[in-house]
Amino acid sequence: MKQVEAVLQGDRLALSRLLSQIENDTPAGRQALDRLFPHTGQAHLIGVTGAPGTGKSSLVNQLARHYRHPEEGVPKKVAVVAVDPSSPFTGGAVLGDRIRMRDLSGDPGVFIRSMASRGSLGGLAKTTAGMVQAFDAAGFEIILIETVGAGQAEVDIARLAHTTLVVEAPGLGDDIQAIKAGILEIADILVVNKADRPGVESTVRALRNMLRLAHPAPRVFRHHGQIEVLPAAVEETAREPVWIPPIRKTIATEGSGIPELAAAIARHRQHLEKTGDLQRRERARLQSELDYRIQETLVAHWRQSASQEKYEAVLAQVVARKLSPAEAVAQLVNGSAP
Amino acid sequence: MKQVEAVLQGDRLALSRLLSQIENDTPAGRQALDRLFPHTGQAHLIGVTGAPGTGKSSLVNQLARHYRHPEEGVPKKVAVVAVDPSSPFTGGAVLGDRIRMRDLSGDPGVFIRSMASRGSLGGLAKTTAGMVQAFDAAGFEIILIETVGAGQAEVDIARLAHTTLVVEAPGLGDDIQAIKAGILEIADILVVNKADRPGVESTVRALRNMLRLAHPAPRVFRHHGQIEVLPAAVEETAREPVWIPPIRKTIATEGSGIPELAAAIARHRQHLEKTGDLQRRERARLQSELDYRIQETLVAHWRQSASQEKYEAVLAQVVARKLSPAEAVAQLVNGSAP
Repeated sequence: MKQVEAVLQGDRLALSRLLSQIENDTPAGRQALDRLFPHTGQAHLIGVTGAPGTGKSSLVNQLARHYRHPEEGVPKKVAVVAVDPSSPFTGGAVLGDRIRMRDLSGDPGVFIRSMASRGSLGGLAKTTAGMVQAFDAAGFEIILIETVGAGQAEVDIARLAHTTLVVEAPGLGDDIQAIKAGILEIADILVVNKADRPGVESTVRALRNMLRLAHPAPRVFRHHGQIEVLPAAVEETAREPVWIPPIRKTIATEGSGIPELAAAIARHRQHLEKTGDLQRRERARLQSELDYRIQETLVAHWRQSASQEKYEAVLAQVVARKLSPAEAVAQLVNGSAP
Repeated sequence: MKQVEAVLQGDRLALSRLLSQIENDTPAGRQALDRLFPHTGQAHLIGVTGAPGTGKSSLVNQLARHYRHPEEGVPKKVAVVAVDPSSPFTGGAVLGDRIRMRDLSGDPGVFIRSMASRGSLGGLAKTTAGMVQAFDAAGFEIILIETVGAGQAEVDIARLAHTTLVVEAPGLGDDIQAIKAGILEIADILVVNKADRPGVESTVRALRNMLRLAHPAPRVFRHHGQIEVLPAAVEETAREPVWIPPIRKTIATEGSGIPELAAAIARHRQHLEKTGDLQRRERARLQSELDYRIQETLVAHWRQSASQEKYEAVLAQVVARKLSPAEAVAQLVNGSAP
């Protein structure tokens, strides 16, 4: 397959075509991903999430720039996957692309891809996983996965990453404060962006207090196969170092605080490698992709074998309140308890 | 079943216990829902969604108060289901309950239930559907389904409703403006809350312009079985009246604009009944619940029949990059193309 070879050799056009195939879930795209998969597992996946208005996109841009122009060491190839599950109808993502392109354009070591989809969340996460695999196989060492919004969807997508940044900003509303608490649990690093705004210290203080609630004692968070059980699956071990999410202040529009943030990201990566958490997160990530695909395949098989007529007839009985949804399933799926 | 009888007769304690059973997905809860299902289909389901910071909760409170103390006619029994998919870890929802209870407490015609869940979104939608069915069977005539946040999750849950309110507020950030465009498509009524704030007229104007883009010509939106195809499935008919989402300004904290909003909701209900859209929405709603349950059942059956050892072995090969996720599925699910 010429396309696979071209992607592996870093051909941008081939990669770009592949990303579209992945987004459209074409047979060619699926085949290429199968072929590319053995070449994945090298990149550092960094998730960036947070409430609207926190300046995530600027932050991601600045991080990309930092990795391209490091103060020391060699530049790294950077890919950005921007996922916008909440804005399925507008050209928002595309516009975002254009604004960004202006900023980082002409650099062959940067590739930015936005995605807005009206599809299901599971589908969106699967597409994101595919794109990340394509970038990974194509030799991008840093892959930034940015999600717009702050709902469960974003949390699920952020779980694709090795290191998750949760971005905050001073002076957002109460509702957002509440949301914050929800996504705090998934944060490996907390970023208070727009740190030149009033109220930055009280935001930092609030986050620190929340962290104290979330991490009451020095503890090691382990993943036990399924990332879902993470918050409950806390174990104490004396020997492994503890990761308490650091809080970093940034002003992304000016680039200030970015080297310190990048240092925290590098430290988290080292921590993951040292503790074996990297392998555990990898496993959890791939397991959740596998589970989603199993589910998708089971439903597709069932649809092929089921009688559309019977389905319609049963649905009509549900609509008429003659069958409950649970009773309807028992009639439609073989082997269900009646 | 005594509990079912008690719920049908409006016993609050029995209802409260049932709601917990539904939330925990217990066998008793599932059985009770089967028994209650024939008694559903009477309530008007009103979804309330919108970005954080728009004051949805106050608005829902005021609507509840309005239905309890109407200017004319008889008071209606009101239930509120507040769904918070983005805040799975905190007591946010519970706190919300308490604040609300103070406001509407002591009124036996009001029942408020908050739900925060770390479960999957599909699971959350199913639980919400179950709670709505319980309230419906218990004789609540108005059921307000409020979702915190503005992502795909909220959109999916809002689809449970007959009438969907999308709440905006002046002066929110650019990100939020972008989100707005996404959820506009599901709005039956647009509410600009906090209408005493500066910028209200420009918010109204922006919404009006977006509406013009979304509804370029007088058209009838029809549902064709699956609510998913709604935006594309637009047909023109000369005889059926057109519903253009009205924009209503409110100041929920003062209660102003609430009677006008309630009037718009009543008018939308009449429209749904007159055009047959009510039946179409009911069907789409129940179909999406049925489809979710079918999927859930298929996965449960597969898990029962699959060998855990084989699953673990295949997953290990994926982690080792020896099998792609797609190849792994082919090995795990019978009848998959290799």
